[in-house]
This record gives sequence, C-alpha cells and structure tokens, in this order.
Amino acid sequence: MSTHLEMLGTEECLRLLEAGAVGRVGVTVSGVPEVLPVNYRVIDGNVVFRTGSGTKLHAATRHAPIAFEVDESDPETLAGWSVLVVGFSEEVTDPGEVAQALGMLPNGWVAGDREHVVRLTPSRISGRRLRRG
Amino acid sequence: MSTHLEMLGTEECLRLLEAGAVGRVGVTVSGVPEVLPVNYRVIDGNVVFRTGSGTKLHAATRHAPIAFEVDESDPETLAGWSVLVVGFSEEVTDPGEVAQALGMLPNGWVAGDREHVVRLTPSRISGRRLRRG
Repeated sequence: MSTHLEMLGTEECLRLLEAGAVGRVGVTVSGVPEVLPVNYRVIDGNVVFRTGSGTKLHAATRHAPIAFEVDESDPETLAGWSVLVVGFSEEVTDPGEVAQALGMLPNGWVAGDREHVVRLTPSRISGRRLRRG
Repeated sequence: MSTHLEMLGTEECLRLLEAGAVGRVGVTVSGVPEVLPVNYRVIDGNVVFRTGSGTKLHAATRHAPIAFEVDESDPETLAGWSVLVVGFSEEVTDPGEVAQALGMLPNGWVAGDREHVVRLTPSRISGRRLRRG
C-alpha cells in the first residue's frame, strides 16, 4: 500500500480544528516536553481549554509558548489527518469570559479542585493529510 | 454527568502502549513545543518510529528529551485514557536494528525521501483514565 502525505491549507485546518472536541497540549516542563489531552473549544478563533489548580498543565500554560494538536486516523489503514497550532497561552481571568468558556467546554481531562480557563492564541496553524492507496 | 480521573499503573500503561499504532511525539523546536503524530511499535520496551530525512521531526528526535503520547476517547462521552512516555530519543544506526524496525513499522506519517528509525527509551511512564457516570 502506497502513502501520500499532503499539506492542508489554513481554511481546512481551521474547519477540522473547530469540529474537534479532544486535542493534545504540548508543553515544556523543566526543559522536557510533555503532551497531555484536553477537551477544548474554538472561541473567537482561539483554542480554549480547562486546567485544574495545582496541576502541571495549569503551571505550564498560564503564560507560555505551547503547541496544540488534533488528529484522526483510521485504525485499519492508518490514513488520517492532523492539525498543529503553535502560539502563546495565557490564563483567562475576566470573570465574564471565564463563565462563557466554562459554559461551552465539556467536563473532561481536568484534575485539581478549582478550574481555570486557558486561551491559546494561534501564531501558526499547519496540517497534513495522509492518504493510502 | 460526573467525571472521575484515575491514575493508571505502569503495567496498564505498557499494555495500552503496546496495543496502539498511532501516537504523538512532543518535541521542542527552537524553544517552542510541537506535537506530531507518528506510527509506532514498542520493540524491546522502547517506543520506535520512523522519521524522514530533512524533516523537523528527524532533527528534533535524533538526540533529545522527547515526549510520546497515546490516547483514546469516546467521541460521545469523551471518556477515555491517555498514556505519556518521557525519555531520551536517539537515531537507530545499527543496520540490523534499522532493518528489523522498518520491517515492523507500518508506513505512515513520514515525509522526506530517506527514512530513519528513532528509538525512545522511556525514563518515565504515566497514564490516566477518565470515567464518566
């Protein structure tokens, strides 16, 4: 079976990003990369997700360059697509924005007692599609 | 719907890791995290995947601390699990080991003309399961 890898345009990346619900955040903790799943929504063009107080994810995304990835693969053929967003993350502190985001975000991969909302403003979006034939 | 997040033991993490076929590599490129999907196999307790000549993934995994993540989520309930491996990656150069790995690895998310094999030796494995009820 041959494979063909194509780059996706920004429009297509945004469409796939907006249709997803689970993605992975890439952060650097003490110089070592880590990748953690989150439930997310795209709100006003930004990737928004929850973190919990005292968690590594919260500490690593309050004010940092981070990556965010979504993908989908066929388990049989392994054909699929992936979208990568890179940008700066910051904690959302405006009470109205926090309430809006928490209302839109599903409960999910959050540890810790108190919930925080993190916003990733994309500086670069790229994507790839893998076809098999 | 309530959620419950539990930590997984190392045995369970290894079982889930060995059963998977697509994971995501977390690397740091010029100080910025990136997350890229790869097809992989666990060989002799190490995570092994292909990279292509001249790709960012190849440059970032030849000799570096990296992260590797696999997960699975129910698209309806968002319940699921994730496993994170952190360790040092290095290119496999022994021709016999390269041939063995290329024979076991599916074709997949590889760009570039010439293929390389990268081995991640785990220094830390952790996992979480999210239940919904």
